[in-house]
Amino acid sequence: MSEARTPGTGGLRMRRMGIDTYQEMVIYMRSDCHVCRSEGLEAQSRVEVRAHDREIVATLNVVHGGALLGVGDIGLSEAAWRALAGKEGDEVTIAHRAPEASFSAVRGKIFGRPFSTESVAGIVRDIVRGRYSDIELATLITACSGNRLDLAETIALTSAMIGAGQQLKWERDVVTDKHCVGGLPGNRTTLLVVPIVAACGLLIPKTSSRAITSPAGTADTMETVAPVALKLEQMRKVVEREGGCIAWGGAVSLSPADDLLIRVERPLDLDSDGLLVASVLSKKIAAGSTHVMIDIPVGRTAKIRSPQAANAIAQRLEQVGDALGIHVRTMLSDGTQPVGRGIGPALEANDVLAVLQSERNAPADLRERSLALVAGILEMGGRAAPGEGLALATATLDSGAAFRKFVAICEAQGGFRLPPRAAYRQPVRALHRGRVVAVDNRRLAGIAKLAGAPKAKAAGIEFHAPVGSLIEEGQPLFTVHAESPGELSYALDYARAQQDVITLQQEP
Amino acid sequence: MSEARTPGTGGLRMRRMGIDTYQEMVIYMRSDCHVCRSEGLEAQSRVEVRAHDREIVATLNVVHGGALLGVGDIGLSEAAWRALAGKEGDEVTIAHRAPEASFSAVRGKIFGRPFSTESVAGIVRDIVRGRYSDIELATLITACSGNRLDLAETIALTSAMIGAGQQLKWERDVVTDKHCVGGLPGNRTTLLVVPIVAACGLLIPKTSSRAITSPAGTADTMETVAPVALKLEQMRKVVEREGGCIAWGGAVSLSPADDLLIRVERPLDLDSDGLLVASVLSKKIAAGSTHVMIDIPVGRTAKIRSPQAANAIAQRLEQVGDALGIHVRTMLSDGTQPVGRGIGPALEANDVLAVLQSERNAPADLRERSLALVAGILEMGGRAAPGEGLALATATLDSGAAFRKFVAICEAQGGFRLPPRAAYRQPVRALHRGRVVAVDNRRLAGIAKLAGAPKAKAAGIEFHAPVGSLIEEGQPLFTVHAESPGELSYALDYARAQQDVITLQQEP
Repeated sequence: MSEARTPGTGGLRMRRMGIDTYQEMVIYMRSDCHVCRSEGLEAQSRVEVRAHDREIVATLNVVHGGALLGVGDIGLSEAAWRALAGKEGDEVTIAHRAPEASFSAVRGKIFGRPFSTESVAGIVRDIVRGRYSDIELATLITACSGNRLDLAETIALTSAMIGAGQQLKWERDVVTDKHCVGGLPGNRTTLLVVPIVAACGLLIPKTSSRAITSPAGTADTMETVAPVALKLEQMRKVVEREGGCIAWGGAVSLSPADDLLIRVERPLDLDSDGLLVASVLSKKIAAGSTHVMIDIPVGRTAKIRSPQAANAIAQRLEQVGDALGIHVRTMLSDGTQPVGRGIGPALEANDVLAVLQSERNAPADLRERSLALVAGILEMGGRAAPGEGLALATATLDSGAAFRKFVAICEAQGGFRLPPRAAYRQPVRALHRGRVVAVDNRRLAGIAKLAGAPKAKAAGIEFHAPVGSLIEEGQPLFTVHAESPGELSYALDYARAQQDVITLQQEP
Repeated sequence: MSEARTPGTGGLRMRRMGIDTYQEMVIYMRSDCHVCRSEGLEAQSRVEVRAHDREIVATLNVVHGGALLGVGDIGLSEAAWRALAGKEGDEVTIAHRAPEASFSAVRGKIFGRPFSTESVAGIVRDIVRGRYSDIELATLITACSGNRLDLAETIALTSAMIGAGQQLKWERDVVTDKHCVGGLPGNRTTLLVVPIVAACGLLIPKTSSRAITSPAGTADTMETVAPVALKLEQMRKVVEREGGCIAWGGAVSLSPADDLLIRVERPLDLDSDGLLVASVLSKKIAAGSTHVMIDIPVGRTAKIRSPQAANAIAQRLEQVGDALGIHVRTMLSDGTQPVGRGIGPALEANDVLAVLQSERNAPADLRERSLALVAGILEMGGRAAPGEGLALATATLDSGAAFRKFVAICEAQGGFRLPPRAAYRQPVRALHRGRVVAVDNRRLAGIAKLAGAPKAKAAGIEFHAPVGSLIEEGQPLFTVHAESPGELSYALDYARAQQDVITLQQEP
């Protein structure tokens, strides 16, 4: 369909309603407003809203009675208010929304017509312009889920996502990065890999996302010890000074379409290989990386459940990397149980700090995984000969050089601080004696989320029952941490209603 | 996941905000509210809201500042206000929304696991209880689109949709019905079939839907000449008195899940064979029909584009009918151009009235289609011998008996009235002389929708250029009707920007 649009109707004055609809833009108009009538608008209409030189597409809520808005006023939700960047009383022009040409390619995809490079670029462009409603985003995500994106489509989507945001350039031939394909609670290796690699002299300007469907993303965890919402120039200064950073990707506008998709993916809890690969590699390439190490945990209750699925994703990551000119190396790892002891932003940060400081009871699994990833990066990046990366990585950690580098990075990002501690804590205990034979990562993550993670930074789970350990009757299996009593009791109710979050085999 | 729920937090007082969010339920709470904090709620959280013995699930909008709500107040959107049926100041209890168990089957479906009878029943039950958010409905619709529902799933979905609403019983062995698989503008045969069949003495208690993605549904068109939002008992009285009715299905709560799905299907403009069959047959079976005649128009720009696709749907309709115990007969028909002259509720009603009154310039195509459908019904229902249905149908129409029956039905439904006429009309003229060789139904429907149809009853298109006719330069191809100048100009702008809505071949 064409992008022809009406001149629209003006003369309305903008009013800030103070209503927070998260990222969805909503406008409020009186039911007796002449503009509603002449433009033929009604509740839930999609509307173009223009003020000065800015333009948004918003959803209309119609207001009955005169208590909320005066005659000739148009109310804006917080997101719409920010996007239009005007002030009280500024004139606003509204018009029917022109039909979105790119969405017809989404419909076609559902009926089996593959995306073309052009159609994907159009979709991503419109998403970044705020042109897709939430139900349109949900439709796109569903159409891409269940492995329905092929290699060519995934390459096209990755390219489109890179092109829709900022791109960084670094004055170095080797720019390293790492990524973990999510789903394994507590697997916070980034906070160890970055300082070790940087301490070894390689550049590692890391951007991370917040949680999609998990109780904590790397950015959420890092935020408990230092600011992560760095602007591009701040990030550049941190990397120039320290050789590495751990910043939130959304704040530097690398692949901004990804963040908009995540907002709808999160409540739906849907994953797609194609969206996953595009999300990961678009961020890496936009960040200017040349060599990327990717950890793929595999386990029955991890995000990737089988070695077959892991190999398929590994292959797709390498193929798309090849096509777009970066080196990608993958590592399959154990995904049968949480890594470390904490699940949730602050609790995971505590594990990281214990490893960095070589504390006696620091989680060995988190340490070993991180060292294996660093080894790969040091070898890929030419800092160690093949087979010698692990020794260099271990020495750098054990010497304290990595901890000093971590604190230095935190300071450069705005200041190191200790993670917060939850006000409400309660253990869940074993009902009988037995040996731990299985852990359900998904349900454990579910409990941590109900306790408030990742939004409540101190919330989550402290995990006491790794596979193989012998647990006495009444001994704590895990402790729930929460910032409010409502969240604590909700998480505990749910935990107690579940069977086999942690499976204990009775022993003689 | 379990349906375990928290006791929730009470002590809030309900306030009607007067904000119309259409059918989506929204609640408004102050950012400094103690309940938000203790329950760990934030903007866009899904929340259970209870008052007296009623309970809804709603989306939270957080309000900053004290202008809109007092301390301890909770604001309700119009839909939430209606659903809770309380009064100003009544106490409300809110809690986290318990995770919806049924949605995991939707996720499974996306990844290739077929729906089971139980999982579909759970989904439909939760939809009818208002438990699905708009993005979850969009995900479900997308997962079912592109022919992804097989026979067993379609039977299960149809049964579940029947079971989720009211079911009618009639004291007759033969209860007839008809349906047209949409997509053909102006194909308003129902308003002719019902009075002819009823005048012939068969029972035909017809319920129709409003438009999904078209400029007019049968209920929208009927509403321009008589009330259609009949309650069950009203409908029963009309049918007892006149042998037939044309009521809006949504108002009698037959297959209510269908109406909730349509709300999200409409803006997405997505269709699914399985959803279509379940939508059609669940309404018919719930309405107590035993013999159903189904018209399937086929054409390049109709909803069903090829005879193959039409046969697939015909077969699926007959198979599901068999499985659920009703007789289904299908008729493939010409779907290459609009039927009659009007597109839009009132304009289509004018065509119907012209045929019923045997006006000299009444649209012959609308008359002939209707008679063919009636013939099938009279033969199926045992009122005419095979091959003799058409003669009886024609005689009943030409005698004026059908028109008298139509007016009697309208009177019984609440009163016959003439369709409204649009205040704003403008023709779109041929740029050169030529013979009409093709008509793009979809774009014609698009123009009618931009003009305001189906919500603006008088809006739409009057079509002057059937395939085969010779058009002079400057002669009108169609006339756009609108109820507001904004809609008229938007539809005209769009119409003029399109190529080949009506293709004229230049003649020597």
